[in-house]
Amino acid sequence: MSLPVLARPQLEPLIRSALAEDLGRAGDITSNAVIPAGTRMEGVVRSRESGRIAGVDAAALAFTLMDDGVDVTIAHPDGAVVQAGTTVLSVSGPAHAILGAERVALNLLCHLSGIATATAALVEAVENYPARIVCTRKTTPGLRTLEKHAVRAGGGANHRFGLDDAMLIKDNHIAMAGGVAAALRQGRAAAGHLVRVEIEVDTLAQLDEALAGGADVVLLDNMDPQTLSAAVRRVNGRAITEASGRVSPETVAAVAATGVDIISVGALSHSAPILDLGLDTGLPDG
Amino acid sequence: MSLPVLARPQLEPLIRSALAEDLGRAGDITSNAVIPAGTRMEGVVRSRESGRIAGVDAAALAFTLMDDGVDVTIAHPDGAVVQAGTTVLSVSGPAHAILGAERVALNLLCHLSGIATATAALVEAVENYPARIVCTRKTTPGLRTLEKHAVRAGGGANHRFGLDDAMLIKDNHIAMAGGVAAALRQGRAAAGHLVRVEIEVDTLAQLDEALAGGADVVLLDNMDPQTLSAAVRRVNGRAITEASGRVSPETVAAVAATGVDIISVGALSHSAPILDLGLDTGLPDG
Amino acid sequence: MSLPVLARPQLEPLIRSALAEDLGRAGDITSNAVIPAGTRMEGVVRSRESGRIAGVDAAALAFTLMDDGVDVTIAHPDGAVVQAGTTVLSVSGPAHAILGAERVALNLLCHLSGIATATAALVEAVENYPARIVCTRKTTPGLRTLEKHAVRAGGGANHRFGLDDAMLIKDNHIAMAGGVAAALRQGRAAAGHLVRVEIEVDTLAQLDEALAGGADVVLLDNMDPQTLSAAVRRVNGRAITEASGRVSPETVAAVAATGVDIISVGALSHSAPILDLGLDTGLPDG
Amino acid sequence: MSLPVLARPQLEPLIRSALAEDLGRAGDITSNAVIPAGTRMEGVVRSRESGRIAGVDAAALAFTLMDDGVDVTIAHPDGAVVQAGTTVLSVSGPAHAILGAERVALNLLCHLSGIATATAALVEAVENYPARIVCTRKTTPGLRTLEKHAVRAGGGANHRFGLDDAMLIKDNHIAMAGGVAAALRQGRAAAGHLVRVEIEVDTLAQLDEALAGGADVVLLDNMDPQTLSAAVRRVNGRAITEASGRVSPETVAAVAATGVDIISVGALSHSAPILDLGLDTGLPDG
Amino acid sequence: MSLPVLARPQLEPLIRSALAEDLGRAGDITSNAVIPAGTRMEGVVRSRESGRIAGVDAAALAFTLMDDGVDVTIAHPDGAVVQAGTTVLSVSGPAHAILGAERVALNLLCHLSGIATATAALVEAVENYPARIVCTRKTTPGLRTLEKHAVRAGGGANHRFGLDDAMLIKDNHIAMAGGVAAALRQGRAAAGHLVRVEIEVDTLAQLDEALAGGADVVLLDNMDPQTLSAAVRRVNGRAITEASGRVSPETVAAVAATGVDIISVGALSHSAPILDLGLDTGLPDG
Amino acid sequence: MSLPVLARPQLEPLIRSALAEDLGRAGDITSNAVIPAGTRMEGVVRSRESGRIAGVDAAALAFTLMDDGVDVTIAHPDGAVVQAGTTVLSVSGPAHAILGAERVALNLLCHLSGIATATAALVEAVENYPARIVCTRKTTPGLRTLEKHAVRAGGGANHRFGLDDAMLIKDNHIAMAGGVAAALRQGRAAAGHLVRVEIEVDTLAQLDEALAGGADVVLLDNMDPQTLSAAVRRVNGRAITEASGRVSPETVAAVAATGVDIISVGALSHSAPILDLGLDTGLPDG
Repeated sequence: MSLPVLARPQLEPLIRSALAEDLGRAGDITSNAVIPAGTRMEGVVRSRESGRIAGVDAAALAFTLMDDGVDVTIAHPDGAVVQAGTTVLSVSGPAHAILGAERVALNLLCHLSGIATATAALVEAVENYPARIVCTRKTTPGLRTLEKHAVRAGGGANHRFGLDDAMLIKDNHIAMAGGVAAALRQGRAAAGHLVRVEIEVDTLAQLDEALAGGADVVLLDNMDPQTLSAAVRRVNGRAITEASGRVSPETVAAVAATGVDIISVGALSHSAPILDLGLDTGLPDG
Repeated sequence: MSLPVLARPQLEPLIRSALAEDLGRAGDITSNAVIPAGTRMEGVVRSRESGRIAGVDAAALAFTLMDDGVDVTIAHPDGAVVQAGTTVLSVSGPAHAILGAERVALNLLCHLSGIATATAALVEAVENYPARIVCTRKTTPGLRTLEKHAVRAGGGANHRFGLDDAMLIKDNHIAMAGGVAAALRQGRAAAGHLVRVEIEVDTLAQLDEALAGGADVVLLDNMDPQTLSAAVRRVNGRAITEASGRVSPETVAAVAATGVDIISVGALSHSAPILDLGLDTGLPDG
Repeated sequence: MSLPVLARPQLEPLIRSALAEDLGRAGDITSNAVIPAGTRMEGVVRSRESGRIAGVDAAALAFTLMDDGVDVTIAHPDGAVVQAGTTVLSVSGPAHAILGAERVALNLLCHLSGIATATAALVEAVENYPARIVCTRKTTPGLRTLEKHAVRAGGGANHRFGLDDAMLIKDNHIAMAGGVAAALRQGRAAAGHLVRVEIEVDTLAQLDEALAGGADVVLLDNMDPQTLSAAVRRVNGRAITEASGRVSPETVAAVAATGVDIISVGALSHSAPILDLGLDTGLPDG
Repeated sequence: MSLPVLARPQLEPLIRSALAEDLGRAGDITSNAVIPAGTRMEGVVRSRESGRIAGVDAAALAFTLMDDGVDVTIAHPDGAVVQAGTTVLSVSGPAHAILGAERVALNLLCHLSGIATATAALVEAVENYPARIVCTRKTTPGLRTLEKHAVRAGGGANHRFGLDDAMLIKDNHIAMAGGVAAALRQGRAAAGHLVRVEIEVDTLAQLDEALAGGADVVLLDNMDPQTLSAAVRRVNGRAITEASGRVSPETVAAVAATGVDIISVGALSHSAPILDLGLDTGLPDG
Repeated sequence: MSLPVLARPQLEPLIRSALAEDLGRAGDITSNAVIPAGTRMEGVVRSRESGRIAGVDAAALAFTLMDDGVDVTIAHPDGAVVQAGTTVLSVSGPAHAILGAERVALNLLCHLSGIATATAALVEAVENYPARIVCTRKTTPGLRTLEKHAVRAGGGANHRFGLDDAMLIKDNHIAMAGGVAAALRQGRAAAGHLVRVEIEVDTLAQLDEALAGGADVVLLDNMDPQTLSAAVRRVNGRAITEASGRVSPETVAAVAATGVDIISVGALSHSAPILDLGLDTGLPDG
Repeated sequence: MSLPVLARPQLEPLIRSALAEDLGRAGDITSNAVIPAGTRMEGVVRSRESGRIAGVDAAALAFTLMDDGVDVTIAHPDGAVVQAGTTVLSVSGPAHAILGAERVALNLLCHLSGIATATAALVEAVENYPARIVCTRKTTPGLRTLEKHAVRAGGGANHRFGLDDAMLIKDNHIAMAGGVAAALRQGRAAAGHLVRVEIEVDTLAQLDEALAGGADVVLLDNMDPQTLSAAVRRVNGRAITEASGRVSPETVAAVAATGVDIISVGALSHSAPILDLGLDTGLPDG
């Protein structure tokens, strides 16, 4: 099944804000000054390098929210693999509107495609293992919905979206609750019946306690592959296993080889470089 | 003079939104479940690596907007150089509030410090030349004010903040205006007396035309160092010279050696990895 | 453990909007006209009937957001059982501020306490059974966070908070996905590792298919107690069982007696009458 | 004349917020997972019981704001009387959009129709008397405009919409102003020429003072029918008379029989149970 | 009784927006560049001419919302009469905050004081007559609450605040309703019991019809003084009389002399020049 | 080239807010009461006096945001010269929508056209001199973008749009920085390469210092024409010269005759009376 698109109410407020941020108070003073009213133009957004696309609906909406007279055709939807030179979307309409929305459209598309591309690299690196690559809550403020979507576009999956949609009991919680068993007991009691409970464990002893306490997921934090393997064997299907810690395209296969179910990688959303895309027009070079 | 801080009205709406994004509808269900009401805690935000700090006021505000009973002390302001282990700020107060704001505070601080650190590396690489390192409008939607501030914290300077605070006549504008001379004539006529006019030139012939047209700044786009040097000599102080194109810490000195005034680098805001900082508490490991 | 309070960023935007809605453009023209500037007053918010309190923090915030010179003391926190005449909170400060915020504070407090009270009645009715009483997404637009909190204040628990924090595969989904098995297979594949999957079943045959497909929770919709009992026996601990359908204080015990884990009741949030509370002042009757 | 509809700017912000509240960050993960992209569906919103409709425009807007490709046909406008089984509106379009907006549309429609239905019951009960049934400011925060509209849809009328559009001098005001006469004198002097002044009176003596002071409306609070009748005779057309206090369908006719002009009932907006409506599709039961 | 102040929720959103509008994305780059961090300053806002003050609370809030470390003392509240040189408020605190908020504070104070001053001139001109001077809905978008307040500070009163708080049946309504009598009949039937009904009449014949129809207020539009006098006599206390049309300080007394109750003047809010006030500091001239 | 129009994202939020402000909670109760549902009407907005138009796109958007079934035709765009009786735009559509948006549309159009008209008068008065007429930051809170646009529609130009898009070093800055030279040195060092630096000078001695310090623009504040002339000669093209101080249509030519480049006039935005325009319908006078 193709990747579902984000609903318009999920995109629209962010893109309206982004357009307002770039237009500022005076608007696009350059285009206003030098391009005659009524000028129309066409353009295509092309990738300058190979990668995975995300954010194309957001980019399209930037153009049409600027002026509903802009026509946008999406050539490659989110999740598509592109090469240098691939056209992702094409636009035609009033030049003032297209150039006024260009930077917002590209900033979103390049950033999100960068995340999708980085995700796809990790997903590919573990394709021989059952592990899923997931992102964390280490996202850019205001962009969580879109960045999590970009991870899915890259073939990854999502960890929780916020503090509220799953329980993740970490070391500080354990300390203040009075230990793994107490924390899990209280967490389970308070959790709704649709809420999963995950707990961070640093040692195999803690792991045993977590399993005894009925954790749905155990977060095996910063363990080396050998310890991870031991932990996975110890769990033996009684919980979902998640490995976290500094993971790179070079090291991820070794982590996956331990048999963990989930590998969470903060860098997908906080440190992925952009995928370079740009707007090309049929205009002659000035 | 120390780096000026952002005014509270510049920070507050973004941080309120970021807290709401992370709290979601149900709030911090983990802390609510496992930490007794009234529990207080202390913590310090420390860097895990060496770098340059930005966003510490934003991080502090995340804690106090969550609960004005949290006390925050800033140990190192924006612009400070830190090492692995350096404490940047310390917090004390209700545990629910501190843990509820932790991720928002760190997401801002790590992202902005990453930008400051990447900027500082380029600034240092050109310290023997007059060139200033500046960022572009390739910023994350919603974060332009903070990301531009982070570049300043890293010792860089800022290009324009939006479409509206300076004119930048690019190749598409030139084509639709009917050439460099026509574009500059129209741009100058429309520009307010406090608005500078910059124009992109791809060749030395265009450069001559730009200088004849009275450009304040010439954007020398994607030129190799030899051409850049020739262009800088041709300009000979009649305009500010800006070099752009893919610049890295390895190549920036060669660009600066051409004598350009400004080197603009989109990657500072769109592709800098985070600086890793985390919250440490005095609590025993669970 | 006492009921955790909502974080300030969860309450503040709603209450600011509510105050603005009631003040309108001209403000409290009655108090402005007839109460001299600088007049101070004291008052207590008392319950007029017995019930369960929710929303007292929201009510308190209404007063202090109107004027931070109002002092509020909470006598009974959310979750408290009150009788007719019990004081829930007391206020003192400028009369204009207290009377200007009174209606907003009471509207929130009465509505949420009504939900808590209705919930508590059901919870009490099933206290001899393991079943938990939960609310649904049939909430008042804009108030989901507070209404779900009120259900917890009444001793209930929460179903999912939105379309996004758990999967609930209903009859329409099943029809479009091509059956229970197909829907569950696709749902499981797409669900993050912290997302539980619930599916609605109308017959015991569908129930078998749901269990075979690995549903975490089965929604037994509108079944009579005998069928419910049979379903619970069939599940035999392999999934969480949830009963829904028109449940009243009179019928809920019979549902609980079937052994279901969860009883979901939309009426808690959509049809609970208020708990009547009012502001009493020491002033003589005019 | 048919009931006027609310203007789009009165509805749109509330409905956008409600959709965002239900979609959360991740959106409709169930439909996204199990319904193929491009699937279209049709459905009708039918009442499950007899009653009076309100909110159908709001419900329609929920569907079209989700996706302007959804077609909505309103079969029965606000104010219509429906029976169990009556179709109120029909929708067709993308399944993801229809299911994503369903709960918001129904929550509004059921809540507002519940208010209209409760209002209609009281209106019918007093149809042999001149009294009008009106609601109060005891509304759900954020929904005042819609709830007041629902009361009109049920055949009722509206008391003031906020603190600012009429003066209502209550017992606290009277006490702080120094008595009925002083309060009325000050109120009248400050009131704009389009602002009516109402005052609460608890006794016939206060009533005389209120009439002498030129009150436009007298609020006869919590009087028994005999006292109410006496008060109405005393007023003898010199002011509009309003009765308030706990009024039910059983007791309202007795109140109306006293000859009062207005009967205000807070319960219409704060305690009316929903009218049950649901979305039916042509799909086979899964 | 002194003029009541606006409640904080009536002021705060507007002032936050105004500060954001002036700070833009980069903030106060001048002060940031040339004033050392930590510099404190004092200043007084003085009137440069004689007039009537309005907006001093709004101005004060501009300073404290910028930085709650600014101390503001109000020397003359709204409604005060000032001369050239009179100090209206004084501030002390961080220089960056005071200069950053200065323009917003003054823009509000000068604009609103201009309205108050223009109002006071008309009020004084009619002081020997019973007529009240009122403003209209011809206000600046976003500022209605404050501009109406400024009119009160000048001794005037307010017409309705919006389309919703009183009925004003104008010529277009009359034409579409089928005449004065029909319009009034329908208006009265739909109006809530706290809503006054005003109707515009252009001739004495229409006036008779309006009085017969039970208008609360008659708007005598653009009548010359003789016709106005005749109209007032005809009304003879059966309705409130309002004169509108182009009124100036020179002509207003003649209008008032006709005995009308209300004189409405759109120019108070749409065309009053500012009252000039400025910030003086103890600093030596540079 | 014709005056560029504002982009839709620059207009839409303001106009949505303005409509909400006028509709209030209850909406247009007069039209709702007396105009039958489905009534359509036509109208034209005509000027009642001669002047210069600004805000016609904003006015048009007020009608269509109320109801997208309203058709608007713009007869004269912003910048057009009109006479009494000239039709500026025409509307046709649902009567409720047109009358509901009328006041908002006219308030914007009259206010902005008033600014354009006042600007045009000054521009015409200096047409024999090179000086440009510019507005300041003395604008109405919330309307800066539109008021600055109106000045351009009147043939004027714009000073900076906020604190952030140019440096303007005033007397207070100079005092706190330690003099003109120090202030300029620090300002230049901090200013981005696209930011111009202006400095206020009160004497010729300060002017010399400012020129030596490399000011881009010198603000010659409140100088008499003789001093201004001397200052302009002294500058001799080394900087842009700006005169400010109380300028009127009567005195502006004398200022322009001194040869200054720029004349800034706060009164354009803060004290211009409206241009009177109104909606005329084909309806018979009631």
